[in-house]
Amino acid sequence: MNYRLILSTLGKVLLCEGFCMVLPLLCGIIYREPYVKEFLICIAICAVIGVLLSALKPKTKSLFSKEGYITVALSWIFISLFGSLPFYITGHIPSFIDAFFETASGFSTTGASILTDVESLPKSLLLWRSFTHWIGGMGVLVFLVAILPLSGGSNVYLIKAESPGPSVSKLVPKVKEGAKILYAIYFAFTALEIVLLLIGGLDVFSALTLTFGTAGTGGFAILNSGIANYSPYVQNVITVFMLIFGVDFAIYYLIILRKFKAVLKSDEFKAYIGIVLISITIITVNCLSLFGNIWDTLRHSAFQVASIMTTTGYSTTDFDLWPQLSKTVLVILMFVGACAGSTGGGMKVSRIILLLKSIVKEIRIMAHPRTTFKTTMNGRIVDHETIRGVNVYVAAYFAIFVGALLIISLDNLDFTTNFTAVVATINNIGPGFNLVGPTKNFSVFSDLSKFVLSLVMLTGRLEIFPMIMLFAPTTWKK
Amino acid sequence: MNYRLILSTLGKVLLCEGFCMVLPLLCGIIYREPYVKEFLICIAICAVIGVLLSALKPKTKSLFSKEGYITVALSWIFISLFGSLPFYITGHIPSFIDAFFETASGFSTTGASILTDVESLPKSLLLWRSFTHWIGGMGVLVFLVAILPLSGGSNVYLIKAESPGPSVSKLVPKVKEGAKILYAIYFAFTALEIVLLLIGGLDVFSALTLTFGTAGTGGFAILNSGIANYSPYVQNVITVFMLIFGVDFAIYYLIILRKFKAVLKSDEFKAYIGIVLISITIITVNCLSLFGNIWDTLRHSAFQVASIMTTTGYSTTDFDLWPQLSKTVLVILMFVGACAGSTGGGMKVSRIILLLKSIVKEIRIMAHPRTTFKTTMNGRIVDHETIRGVNVYVAAYFAIFVGALLIISLDNLDFTTNFTAVVATINNIGPGFNLVGPTKNFSVFSDLSKFVLSLVMLTGRLEIFPMIMLFAPTTWKK
Repeated sequence: MNYRLILSTLGKVLLCEGFCMVLPLLCGIIYREPYVKEFLICIAICAVIGVLLSALKPKTKSLFSKEGYITVALSWIFISLFGSLPFYITGHIPSFIDAFFETASGFSTTGASILTDVESLPKSLLLWRSFTHWIGGMGVLVFLVAILPLSGGSNVYLIKAESPGPSVSKLVPKVKEGAKILYAIYFAFTALEIVLLLIGGLDVFSALTLTFGTAGTGGFAILNSGIANYSPYVQNVITVFMLIFGVDFAIYYLIILRKFKAVLKSDEFKAYIGIVLISITIITVNCLSLFGNIWDTLRHSAFQVASIMTTTGYSTTDFDLWPQLSKTVLVILMFVGACAGSTGGGMKVSRIILLLKSIVKEIRIMAHPRTTFKTTMNGRIVDHETIRGVNVYVAAYFAIFVGALLIISLDNLDFTTNFTAVVATINNIGPGFNLVGPTKNFSVFSDLSKFVLSLVMLTGRLEIFPMIMLFAPTTWKK
Repeated sequence: MNYRLILSTLGKVLLCEGFCMVLPLLCGIIYREPYVKEFLICIAICAVIGVLLSALKPKTKSLFSKEGYITVALSWIFISLFGSLPFYITGHIPSFIDAFFETASGFSTTGASILTDVESLPKSLLLWRSFTHWIGGMGVLVFLVAILPLSGGSNVYLIKAESPGPSVSKLVPKVKEGAKILYAIYFAFTALEIVLLLIGGLDVFSALTLTFGTAGTGGFAILNSGIANYSPYVQNVITVFMLIFGVDFAIYYLIILRKFKAVLKSDEFKAYIGIVLISITIITVNCLSLFGNIWDTLRHSAFQVASIMTTTGYSTTDFDLWPQLSKTVLVILMFVGACAGSTGGGMKVSRIILLLKSIVKEIRIMAHPRTTFKTTMNGRIVDHETIRGVNVYVAAYFAIFVGALLIISLDNLDFTTNFTAVVATINNIGPGFNLVGPTKNFSVFSDLSKFVLSLVMLTGRLEIFPMIMLFAPTTWKK
């Protein structure tokens, strides 16, 4: 294990995080909030430890698969630990476990909160809280790879361990260029949403925080009422952008390159659109009597479907009061999640497609045992490794799911709360049902449960394996 | 498709079912119940249709894989349809959907009931109800293969489609001999339990019905209080026999052959014992304050763990009132289920082992990408086909699960009820939680939901694929 290289990368991640904290610091100065000193302390801590770790000179600069996973897992734990300092040092979240939960929820783009009164937080902290979504959405190491001259050709392992989806779609042959393109698209859509929200009459602070929450598919709001009290225009803009950020970014690159045929060939993209439309239709019909008129029903159901499917977790209405069919559709969408290569969480549409295709293939084999069948995706044959990866991911996903469910059941809350709490955290959504419903929060859980759910959020964001690798004994054997 | 062969096999299955109905008929005569005519009508219907179908002469006697699955799926639907006649014709279950649900629940060894007052049923119907468990436990076609001179070497497809588990363990090279041995062991344990229950002071009728429910891992009781009002001795005997019938019968054959080393090599057998012991320990500690003394707690927790893990579904206490940790352990056990090659349902211990082993293997591959690893089970390398089969099974299992959950959510009952209703039926357990808890029943559901859950029970018992094959368009294409 190349410990020095891992630690020096962690140092760079911390430096990056310290730099990011300048944004909330500026916000605090602008709004004349009394937390300049506290933010400077946090930045100083990140800077000092960051510089010390970065100064470590690794013997060799090459990074192997195993070290890639470990670096990514540790990076996300580190940024969550250090990122919780502003909440803790300012005293606005007095318990460190709570602050860690809130920050892990931010970076993992979950949006689950332990805060009972979000509006009591100063603007600088609210901005930091939402900004963690934006940072976590596209990935920290993807960012580092994009801007820093990291070690040669082995960055691919970092990207592979951090990127969502069953296989890494290579935009361009060079990893560094690919990361730059991803961030450029991310920036462009972020800027566009901010502008559209400003046009809708929001102030700069609200436009920034809501956009960060949308872009990262996070879900932290700045009002206790979530998104319910904004205008229909703002809600619709957010609906559209949640859906935009839930699409594989490779699709946008193809559009930029004017390869429209390739876009239409994407099974995942088509299935994503299809699932969204079908879900909105079912829920609209099912909830029509609740809202009285079709347009309000359509707006709320489109918002909620986009929010849950992309794993953002914003809400315009208390969907825990919806009929059970609509709620069940939402629970299923929680598992499905967004597209691979997006900022969204969940199992990813492409994995679901591959699983369903494997069933169809099996039935064909059973019906015609002497014929061979190949699984295709986007018009190409899927290799055995990818399918094995999907299957093992599903197994590991449920193993983590069951483990977390068991531990949090020690708090003796009801099954729906526990089950949807794990669903909402492992898939990086935010709210669940019952005691963790859209108008409730995660403060009902014990410290142990909050800690476990924090790890579950990070595990979900990193698609299980980096975290398992970190804790597996076999990783640390010589 | 060899329709004539399929239909003539279905005819034999019906003849077999008509013959089985003689037992409840005799019971009715002994207890002087007024249903002799009704039972004779049912037997006559089975006999006439059975003779007509059996009379069809197939052009060729060879059965292919596809036809094996279709035959098995149709056989189970047929026996459930015709088996519901006694309930329907006597008027004790006036709705045919309800009667079908009850019978499918019986044959699939689920034990979920729509009856609100079991004790109001005459003894003959109670015996038939419990007897369906016993018939369904070991399998109808396994029985046919054992006793009838069916077509040559292609019976293996019937056994394969009906037997539980990721792969068919061949006891002996000849399929017919294997089926005979299975039924011999089944008979022996059934007789032993009856004797032990008679020693415990039960009357013949109670001993028979309770044993049928245990042997098939079914769970229909003959008292509204389930097993709660029997003596601790009777409860303990049932606990032990539920566990016995949850073991792969191949283990007993190995014991008869004195191959004790092979028994100890069985990963599944060891894991089964381990999971049972760990679960009993957790629940005993968790529920100690509920029952006051350790022996009562141990008895109830051992009974419930055995009942749920083997997917029997008997209950000695309302475990819906237990603390959430214990309930969560039970929900997880519902998914795990019994051993492959037993009469129990669920995913089966061996599948869970293979899934966990695939995670460990993946981590090893990630840590050491240039080394190759093999998955072993019972000291032997598992072939690629078996692992693929397990993965596809899991995918299909959850696809069916999600579909059923969506449809029954139309009834607008709560999530815990719906979720555990599907868990309890697809895994052939019986009771779930909340409105389908151990003291409640499935009468709360609409006819549509009852019909869907009936199919889910049969689908679960046949391990998904025969039912999917039956409804897949690809099966019926030329």
